[in-house]
Amino acid sequence: MKLIQSRDNAFYKQLRRLAESGRERRKRGLSLLDGVHLVESWERCHGPVEQLIVGESALAGGEIAAYVGGREVTVLADPLLRELGIVDTPSGLLAVVETPAAKFTVDLAGDAILLDGVQDPGNLGSLLRSAAAAGIRQALLSPGCAAAWSPKALRAGQGAHFLLDIHEEADLAAFIADYRGTVAVTCLEGASDLFASEWQGPLAWVFGAEGQGVRPALIAAAGLRLRIPMPGAVESLNVGAAAAVCLFEMVRRRA
Amino acid sequence: MKLIQSRDNAFYKQLRRLAESGRERRKRGLSLLDGVHLVESWERCHGPVEQLIVGESALAGGEIAAYVGGREVTVLADPLLRELGIVDTPSGLLAVVETPAAKFTVDLAGDAILLDGVQDPGNLGSLLRSAAAAGIRQALLSPGCAAAWSPKALRAGQGAHFLLDIHEEADLAAFIADYRGTVAVTCLEGASDLFASEWQGPLAWVFGAEGQGVRPALIAAAGLRLRIPMPGAVESLNVGAAAAVCLFEMVRRRA
Repeated sequence: MKLIQSRDNAFYKQLRRLAESGRERRKRGLSLLDGVHLVESWERCHGPVEQLIVGESALAGGEIAAYVGGREVTVLADPLLRELGIVDTPSGLLAVVETPAAKFTVDLAGDAILLDGVQDPGNLGSLLRSAAAAGIRQALLSPGCAAAWSPKALRAGQGAHFLLDIHEEADLAAFIADYRGTVAVTCLEGASDLFASEWQGPLAWVFGAEGQGVRPALIAAAGLRLRIPMPGAVESLNVGAAAAVCLFEMVRRRA
Repeated sequence: MKLIQSRDNAFYKQLRRLAESGRERRKRGLSLLDGVHLVESWERCHGPVEQLIVGESALAGGEIAAYVGGREVTVLADPLLRELGIVDTPSGLLAVVETPAAKFTVDLAGDAILLDGVQDPGNLGSLLRSAAAAGIRQALLSPGCAAAWSPKALRAGQGAHFLLDIHEEADLAAFIADYRGTVAVTCLEGASDLFASEWQGPLAWVFGAEGQGVRPALIAAAGLRLRIPMPGAVESLNVGAAAAVCLFEMVRRRA
């Protein structure tokens, strides 16, 4: 067990670069996981993490101390951990892992979630979480989406990342053109009622950015345009809420 | 039209206190609305806002300039507006309004959403948005919830606040004890499948904090314990996603 107390420590400086720069994380092919739940989820899917890092006071007791048990860890003085600024409320446990590549090429006959320019990492993570919960196994993210493996998106995903094949910088239009199931998109114009419309077989759900929504070219290419019926005088739902309603309507029908 | 360029301007100093302090907002009974959509939604429900404040560059053209048209506005130099730090990405349009009180006492025979310790203002606003979209008219918030009328919660609510009677610091246990419809809560243990379970009449939905969930005493008091079936190996959904699934299952059944 190594205790780091100095900002000049070489390992700490490396860690800080990783924490601060998505570019550095991509270059080195590494991701940072914050919290017991995420680290556990990782280890269930991929085996032991390379590096466990614990805040000094978190090691004194509680959930994190119990989790790390007798394992090899690097201990950071609390201010040093806090200064990494990885997520808004750091848990005290951090792991460095190799960012997994998508295991498979895209499956043109399987369910999918397609995200078009979802910029907020919290929304992105939450969308992946709902998709994985609904049994979807592949996610395609357009250029312009937040980085899927950023600490904030990982935190919001709560382990969903490890259950999905995630394809970043994906060409959604090309996928849609070749897809062998039904492409579904929520929109307001020319859309049919989600609960009344009919579909069958595999589905690729397209969700867009808050504000702009899905790009018109993708809406035009989708086979199924749906709207969620809203009794209240509200124009739209948060994208994460809308996606959850759609994905679990799929789950309901298949049950 | 008045242009403020100095941080020492008395109006700006007042505005800054309002922006920075929930306590100040409560004391003065005022709320701040950011963005055209929110201000428009307010004006549809309550008539013209008292104070319109516009960033200097937003006045040069675009959606905000079109919205304010020839109206009386106070113009802030851009850095001054930015420094208010009201939301992460200020739109350039701000309004000061009187925080509306709940119009009615609670309706013990009407649909309701009950929030138990939801601390994140973004989650809280998004929950209110889904509830209003589903046609619910009253929200009860336990002590420990984020302030409903904070700028971040308002932004996430996208106008839902103006369609709801919002009761803050509410005694949820007392409401549940007297409620004349069915109280529904999502939980993992002893719960039946959301899509397979039966209910009718008015519903009060209880949703809890990320992490802790709904307090055990409230779960015990609920007449209907539900779980959302999840084909994927995910333990739970984001609270906003879970709430959307439940609320729109209610909408679907009533259609």
